[in-house]
Amino acid sequence: MSGGVTVGLDMGGTKVLGLALDPEGAVLAEERVLTPHRPGAPLTDADVAELVIDTLGTVADRLRATVAGDVVAVGVGAPGLVDNSGVLRFAPNLPGGAGLDVAGRLSARLHGLRTVVDNDATCATVGEWAFGAAAGASDAVLVTLGTGIGGGIIAAGHVVRGASGFAGEVGHMVVDPNGPPCTCGKRGCWERFASGSGLGRLAREAAHAGRLDDVVRLAGGDAESVRGEHVTMAAKAGDPEALAVLEELGRWLALGLANLALTLDPSVMVFGGGLVDTVTLVLDAVRAHFDDLMGGRASRPEVLIVPAELGERAGAIGAAVVARLGDRYRADAP
Amino acid sequence: MSGGVTVGLDMGGTKVLGLALDPEGAVLAEERVLTPHRPGAPLTDADVAELVIDTLGTVADRLRATVAGDVVAVGVGAPGLVDNSGVLRFAPNLPGGAGLDVAGRLSARLHGLRTVVDNDATCATVGEWAFGAAAGASDAVLVTLGTGIGGGIIAAGHVVRGASGFAGEVGHMVVDPNGPPCTCGKRGCWERFASGSGLGRLAREAAHAGRLDDVVRLAGGDAESVRGEHVTMAAKAGDPEALAVLEELGRWLALGLANLALTLDPSVMVFGGGLVDTVTLVLDAVRAHFDDLMGGRASRPEVLIVPAELGERAGAIGAAVVARLGDRYRADAP
Repeated sequence: MSGGVTVGLDMGGTKVLGLALDPEGAVLAEERVLTPHRPGAPLTDADVAELVIDTLGTVADRLRATVAGDVVAVGVGAPGLVDNSGVLRFAPNLPGGAGLDVAGRLSARLHGLRTVVDNDATCATVGEWAFGAAAGASDAVLVTLGTGIGGGIIAAGHVVRGASGFAGEVGHMVVDPNGPPCTCGKRGCWERFASGSGLGRLAREAAHAGRLDDVVRLAGGDAESVRGEHVTMAAKAGDPEALAVLEELGRWLALGLANLALTLDPSVMVFGGGLVDTVTLVLDAVRAHFDDLMGGRASRPEVLIVPAELGERAGAIGAAVVARLGDRYRADAP
Repeated sequence: MSGGVTVGLDMGGTKVLGLALDPEGAVLAEERVLTPHRPGAPLTDADVAELVIDTLGTVADRLRATVAGDVVAVGVGAPGLVDNSGVLRFAPNLPGGAGLDVAGRLSARLHGLRTVVDNDATCATVGEWAFGAAAGASDAVLVTLGTGIGGGIIAAGHVVRGASGFAGEVGHMVVDPNGPPCTCGKRGCWERFASGSGLGRLAREAAHAGRLDDVVRLAGGDAESVRGEHVTMAAKAGDPEALAVLEELGRWLALGLANLALTLDPSVMVFGGGLVDTVTLVLDAVRAHFDDLMGGRASRPEVLIVPAELGERAGAIGAAVVARLGDRYRADAP
């Protein structure tokens, strides 16, 4: 990859994580700034815009002051749909953010520095593709297992953003039309089963059925208070009932991964997000069930299922890579 | 698109459909040859290879003799997995075909003419993308609704073949883990519901439940004899019970299409194959259910759901396009 140092900024719900990245993927400097809040008065959209741009600009300035040499571009991973010109169009987790010209205003704040904005999940995918668990793959899928499930796709050596930038909404793939209702209004979306909230639901079902007595005690004695964290904690301590619930989670994870693999035939599938450690406890079960679901193992190469490698830095690293590539809609393999 | 006339050959189970295509997509000549059979003695693998290459060569020769000017390359759509060098690696519907060097042997038979071989579903997708219902789309999905469901994907302006050439096996996406068993060994694959065989199953279920009396009469009086064709025929004649079964088919079709659209965000989804006319009868219902499943209609552009335009010629036209593009694994938009 050619070019100088770039800055990547990952806009999270509560903080901006920024870093300066050299062309070989080394992190030269890192900064975190909490998104400031103004307690008391409700924020207008203009206030939100000002706060966001100011926070991003502050982080970028600090990184530029820290690294030797010029920063050639800034990339931003934004929590929502970003159009071709870097305007945030749909930002459910950033009230007031829709319509914000992040690229234009941040570039102005940084005295004309080239600024590229992309979706945050796409940035995380590019990060893992460039310097993480999917490095070198022409076809890869990344899933982020948090409260819900997000996704990113590399296909035929290209980042797949889709016709409108909405690609990768894999958490709302229906895997059981008679399944539990989802926040989206449908039933049986994949993230009802294989996410953090899915694990909580599977665990409470097991608890109510009397299959998680030790976990219920851990949660204070009430089956309804059981959370995914309690199950993970008990499973780490060797509780077979807790491990059985995690294996159920793992089977649902494998089912969705197999659906995606049948569609896209990736060589590697990367799982990231808050559930990484939990899933790693039952990774053998995930892989075994995945192989069962794929069929024809003898005639196809193994699909690797591996944890993400860049942790919470993935989005910022990817944003820095996108900034270097420049034209985000035709970004080729780094 | 630059270059001269190319020949495209689609290897079907019983015939080869070939055509000569000019760079603007006009079909200059067309040939069909039944795959010859040798009744009596079982065929050895070498016999099958010889028959296949001879039939392909015969069709190509006739087309070259018919069109004025030189043919610059030949493309072949083959029913199976084709590796980078044009060797058929996995061909469940062509016994003896696995291991056959289609590209090398056909090129030799045609005195060194450049020969490119690709998967037949991929060719059909390229055909519809180049000159059919998905023309001009950077992101498109094609599904072929026959006995099962096949698929092809265009993403970020590229044909998606996957890491091993297996991409597009969308028919075996699980959409109901408690659903009916599939030939693949799993339960509730999409093609158990939204294909020709899925329609037959839905229809027989309805017939046994007493909901398709007129259709049962059409089928000879036995619920177990009801086929998809009977339902389509009755629906065309206005039978409301038959239409209700087709709408059930349409809901399952919409469910799988929505899963794919959430993952890939195409601007257009094309349905082809033997079930095109049947699905067209309930296309409004398919579209309405699809929109329900996608959510957020206000914030995203409409995804077009349209019938294929090239009919049975799609694969041969696509093979001719792939031949022109040459390097099939990096084929860009025509």
